[in-house]
Amino acid sequence: MKKRLMTGFTPTGKLHLGHFVGNLENLLKLKSEYDSYLLLADTHALTTLKDNPAIIKQHTQDVLLDLLSVGLSETEVTYYVESEIPEIYEMSSFFSMYVSHNRALRNPTIKDEIKMKGLGEQFSLGFINYPMFQAADILCVKGEIVPVGIDQEAHLEQSREIAREFNRLAGKDILPEPKALIGRVGKLIGTDGNPKMSKSLGNTIYLSATEEEVEKKVMSMYTDPTRLKATDPGHVEGNPVFIYLDAFAPAQEREQIGKYKELYKLGQVGDVEVKKYLIKILNDFLAPIRKRREEYNNPELLKKIMKQGSEKVQTETRLVLSELKQVLGMNY
Amino acid sequence: MKKRLMTGFTPTGKLHLGHFVGNLENLLKLKSEYDSYLLLADTHALTTLKDNPAIIKQHTQDVLLDLLSVGLSETEVTYYVESEIPEIYEMSSFFSMYVSHNRALRNPTIKDEIKMKGLGEQFSLGFINYPMFQAADILCVKGEIVPVGIDQEAHLEQSREIAREFNRLAGKDILPEPKALIGRVGKLIGTDGNPKMSKSLGNTIYLSATEEEVEKKVMSMYTDPTRLKATDPGHVEGNPVFIYLDAFAPAQEREQIGKYKELYKLGQVGDVEVKKYLIKILNDFLAPIRKRREEYNNPELLKKIMKQGSEKVQTETRLVLSELKQVLGMNY
Repeated sequence: MKKRLMTGFTPTGKLHLGHFVGNLENLLKLKSEYDSYLLLADTHALTTLKDNPAIIKQHTQDVLLDLLSVGLSETEVTYYVESEIPEIYEMSSFFSMYVSHNRALRNPTIKDEIKMKGLGEQFSLGFINYPMFQAADILCVKGEIVPVGIDQEAHLEQSREIAREFNRLAGKDILPEPKALIGRVGKLIGTDGNPKMSKSLGNTIYLSATEEEVEKKVMSMYTDPTRLKATDPGHVEGNPVFIYLDAFAPAQEREQIGKYKELYKLGQVGDVEVKKYLIKILNDFLAPIRKRREEYNNPELLKKIMKQGSEKVQTETRLVLSELKQVLGMNY
Repeated sequence: MKKRLMTGFTPTGKLHLGHFVGNLENLLKLKSEYDSYLLLADTHALTTLKDNPAIIKQHTQDVLLDLLSVGLSETEVTYYVESEIPEIYEMSSFFSMYVSHNRALRNPTIKDEIKMKGLGEQFSLGFINYPMFQAADILCVKGEIVPVGIDQEAHLEQSREIAREFNRLAGKDILPEPKALIGRVGKLIGTDGNPKMSKSLGNTIYLSATEEEVEKKVMSMYTDPTRLKATDPGHVEGNPVFIYLDAFAPAQEREQIGKYKELYKLGQVGDVEVKKYLIKILNDFLAPIRKRREEYNNPELLKKIMKQGSEKVQTETRLVLSELKQVLGMNY
């Protein structure tokens, strides 16, 4: 039997090329090896979008459409929406009774996120609770393998502690101890050369970008600031144009890319020529994604995919929950 | 239309005479004036009984039986069990996104409880979350009036803040701002003269005590330590025997109690005589409670009462929740 894989996406905006390199590429390889479950964590999005909650619904549909478009078909993975499975809240509430407040605050990922998102003292109780929701997100489908970045390992450790605690109370193993699958997580720099990609910096290329949008983004891409004219010798390292070429060109283009790199270093090719080449490469890469997007771009179809997956997961979650409630004696 | 009253009991053990004076007597007066809802907060009990959760179920049944026995009939009040209404967890999860962690920790009742229960640093995340659950416990039935001790006012203020926040988001009043009904909350000292009554101190008389148990407890009651023999003048103030007489004797016994107080102060009546009188008074007080207890003491009947009330509340809760989810855009 295939092991169960679970991972989640917090719908705070459309996915971009950085997400592809960082996560989706990996999932596309893993999907057939595992019984795969993908969560759309819309409630989690409230930790940052609480003042504009209505937008989360749109983000959730956008992210689902992005995932389907890259090739994570609903026939191969099960999609579920956090808010469609209220049992997740119930489960996380029980978990919160078994985790000390101190332990929750000691979570290094929580500390890092507070710093990274600049939350200061302005984070919600729900934000501190989030590792409980995450444990429920994973354990509700008895997820065993969780492909995550190294920064999420602390949350997984928390989930394992919870699983062990309930297994101890039950006197038998009712919950798996989910393991992180920390692969080679690629990282992509922004089109402006900033190592951090973000919507607010405008330095991303969305998976849903049109040909024209790709062209515009690439033509304004940051390259080598030391190179003032095409005949100056240029730098390839740290140059977004070449980084994107390496990340998105198919194997048969490797030779051509190697040539461009040599010519660039010698000052024998202009930025515009290489950028035009990158535009073609990116549009070729996005072509099948755009094609699938057209097929899936139907609100009713997306709704159906969310509903079917969520119902399947809800049925499973109810079984897990009834085991937990048995342990807690909550069966009147 | 009657206003809606809501209050809750955390089932951590059987109810005793202290609960009657502190709360139940008041509820018996209020039940017909309001549309009354009584919560059995079994999940809350996990904040202190997490290592022995199976016992909570028994406590829940015991507390319900106590409440029914004192005369809070299921035909007059609606009983609901927290864990039977998972929507409460869902609602509280949303609330937790709108309350800052700092605000939650600033709750003076939380601080007092930590001190009172000697929790030190050993309290759960669920304990800190509890005001969110409590807000959901109240708002799920749109409770307007909450008879509580003054110590719970801080929780109610938190519930009002949450109600206001969601009303603001909704652009209309979808949740009431629940008000505390802080009545004359009587307090009873322990049979050992300790102002704190507790199971662990063994200084309580349960509402479910038999005649023999009442006799035993009263005969060993602390009285006046300065009085060595019956002919010594005695003190009536702070003397549990007289405090209990004042609390539980019917009006027609007031004269007799007055006489005993005089004689006691003059050293003309022994402890034993007054205690025997108190035994009769308490057993007379408990007689109708015992009679009703016999009628209700049937696990199937108790189960049915919990089920019917919880189902009624669940239906109402779902309506409230769907209003909240509409505001959050969580309607796929």
